[in-house]
Amino acid sequence: MKYFAKVKYLGTGFHGFQVQPGLRTVQGELCSALRSVFGAECRVTGCSRTDAGVHANEFCITVDCGSATVPPEKLPVAVSRFLPNDLSLFYAETCSENFHPRYDVVSKEYVYHIANSRIYDPFLYGRAWFFPRPITDIAISEMNRAASYFLGKHDFFGFMSEGADNVTDTVRTIYHLSVERSVGLITVRVRGDGFLYNMVRIIVGTLIDVAMGKLSPQDIPGIISSRDRSRAGMTAPAEGLYLNKVNY
Amino acid sequence: MKYFAKVKYLGTGFHGFQVQPGLRTVQGELCSALRSVFGAECRVTGCSRTDAGVHANEFCITVDCGSATVPPEKLPVAVSRFLPNDLSLFYAETCSENFHPRYDVVSKEYVYHIANSRIYDPFLYGRAWFFPRPITDIAISEMNRAASYFLGKHDFFGFMSEGADNVTDTVRTIYHLSVERSVGLITVRVRGDGFLYNMVRIIVGTLIDVAMGKLSPQDIPGIISSRDRSRAGMTAPAEGLYLNKVNY
Repeated sequence: MKYFAKVKYLGTGFHGFQVQPGLRTVQGELCSALRSVFGAECRVTGCSRTDAGVHANEFCITVDCGSATVPPEKLPVAVSRFLPNDLSLFYAETCSENFHPRYDVVSKEYVYHIANSRIYDPFLYGRAWFFPRPITDIAISEMNRAASYFLGKHDFFGFMSEGADNVTDTVRTIYHLSVERSVGLITVRVRGDGFLYNMVRIIVGTLIDVAMGKLSPQDIPGIISSRDRSRAGMTAPAEGLYLNKVNY
Repeated sequence: MKYFAKVKYLGTGFHGFQVQPGLRTVQGELCSALRSVFGAECRVTGCSRTDAGVHANEFCITVDCGSATVPPEKLPVAVSRFLPNDLSLFYAETCSENFHPRYDVVSKEYVYHIANSRIYDPFLYGRAWFFPRPITDIAISEMNRAASYFLGKHDFFGFMSEGADNVTDTVRTIYHLSVERSVGLITVRVRGDGFLYNMVRIIVGTLIDVAMGKLSPQDIPGIISSRDRSRAGMTAPAEGLYLNKVNY
């Protein structure tokens, strides 16, 4: 039986999703909990490889447990019982054998939280990028004007960190990119058909350069077409990033 | 110079506010940070003694540093630099020598968060009481009906845990008590002129008994007037409780 399932995790204590020898990872904890439930090894496949410190409100996986059968509606409670407090499995259904949680993704949504206050908020520590310099409402308008230039299909080679697996196609389509302020928190929301290594964090770093007046919104098309990493902004820290929704 | 200041903390890592030898406390961390700023011992007085694990969105203190002078508007940044990530000082002004942050309180507001979902939310771990049994909208109406009986001036002797300092007057006035649901979270909000040891947590435990049908709203007046701790509900766990606002 193959399950499609959704998990949620606070990334702070994990070295990302993917199993790495000797390190605590989401996949490692899931495999260990599933072993306790099924009494056998299960194969867990994820929808993406989140980095160390990155969070997920909704991360999709498949679980392949051979002949083992637990009704899918019982799986969340059964598995979560064996999971640590920073990870839960909250939804499961059965799926076809040929469904793939990464290859079958149609679009993904990330949110990035920036804690914009002079003094940090202890409740947001590790859950948002603490950015104490004031970001005005005018700056947020400018960020949104800059954001509009990212929309559509572009070669985002310049918005990729080195160290990814050998990626040959660096063309991605962005469907939505917006910046909104709530109390003390600025949230960047982006939806696209896929994202290169660190691409969301580099987009956020670039929007911050716009907010600080180092770049103007009109600079964005030239930066994208230059394919030059050094012209884009910094890679915003992992702790503000959340995989928020995966669409199939 | 004497300062009135507001601090905020995630209570998980603290053994409450008040200094205790060998234990990590909010007061201890504040004194240590102030020593770094002023190069001298300062006296820190708090508005209440929160228990281990209880959080504060706004906790008021006075800081007495003798002749040391730092402009109050500079104090938050100066002090927060020396504070750990789970504690910040976010507001300060000067105050008169005879102002007392505990005796001069007019009212205090607490909120209590209950995470009501079948599967726990990793982002709420340590920040809400995980209560997986479903609380229906009808149950929330019943909790609010029960809440109305707490309003006004009563002897809350039966809503106090043992182990408090010798309290002789157990009469308190509750101005507001309400229960509201947002996504996955039920929030109890209570405002009163003062609260006995564990009083808010016992009120929450009693409201949960109403939600579960163990008590009916009409039972509340009899439970209060009985002054019998065993007739009220359990003491809800510390992790859901937040001191939210202090009024002078």
